[in-house]
Amino acid sequence: MTNNEFETPAAAEAAFYKALEAADTALMQAVWDEGPDLVCVHPMWPELHGHRAIFAAWRRMFAAGPHLTVSTVPVLQRRDGDLATHVVHEQLGLRGDDNQQPPVVATNVYRHTAAGWRMILHHASPTPTVTIDEDTVLH
Amino acid sequence: MTNNEFETPAAAEAAFYKALEAADTALMQAVWDEGPDLVCVHPMWPELHGHRAIFAAWRRMFAAGPHLTVSTVPVLQRRDGDLATHVVHEQLGLRGDDNQQPPVVATNVYRHTAAGWRMILHHASPTPTVTIDEDTVLH
Repeated sequence: MTNNEFETPAAAEAAFYKALEAADTALMQAVWDEGPDLVCVHPMWPELHGHRAIFAAWRRMFAAGPHLTVSTVPVLQRRDGDLATHVVHEQLGLRGDDNQQPPVVATNVYRHTAAGWRMILHHASPTPTVTIDEDTVLH
Repeated sequence: MTNNEFETPAAAEAAFYKALEAADTALMQAVWDEGPDLVCVHPMWPELHGHRAIFAAWRRMFAAGPHLTVSTVPVLQRRDGDLATHVVHEQLGLRGDDNQQPPVVATNVYRHTAAGWRMILHHASPTPTVTIDEDTVLH
């Protein structure tokens, strides 16, 4: 990952959450694909379209420096050709604040490009803590 | 669409919202792919994994018969090989109730199968009414 080319969707995803926690815009930029047909939905935000709008928001969020703690639990990972769809439970917290934040469910879609796997969609939304599971546990 | 084989992701999506409004479980079943690695997130619900859990929920929702009105606005449609990712604004209402419900943003992912395009993921969540748009409008 020295050159930020992610060889697997999981590597891109790990970098995404690392960038979120570290407020690292450059790493976040390495995670996302280029172009206008990208979508990012933060919990209870209007959706953001395209690299420019998405990064204007990340830069605003990251301007205050690292202030989040992030832990994730994978829910589903599937790959269909050059696309990968992951569903993740996110538990976000504020550094120095022990109050539990409400959990978030995120859909992350990655595309295999000439420069490795890149995120093309992030849709995060509040979710209850209870999970309804299929008999098949996927990982 | 006589045999419910959807030739385009848009046709599958139209059938999805038609099934939702008509509380038509058979049509909804025709829209979704089979298998355990499917995900459905209704607004503020725990996510549902796999065909069985997803359809247990649809059947519960549809048991009361048709009671929703549904209108949608496409936000983004992209296709990468055999997968299509759509983002849609949903405006749901209750029949006979003029109160405006809060808008919903949905990510819908479709896969091209031997039996046409099928839904593999539906992630719907509450969203503010304001949209932040990229300069490029996609359709």
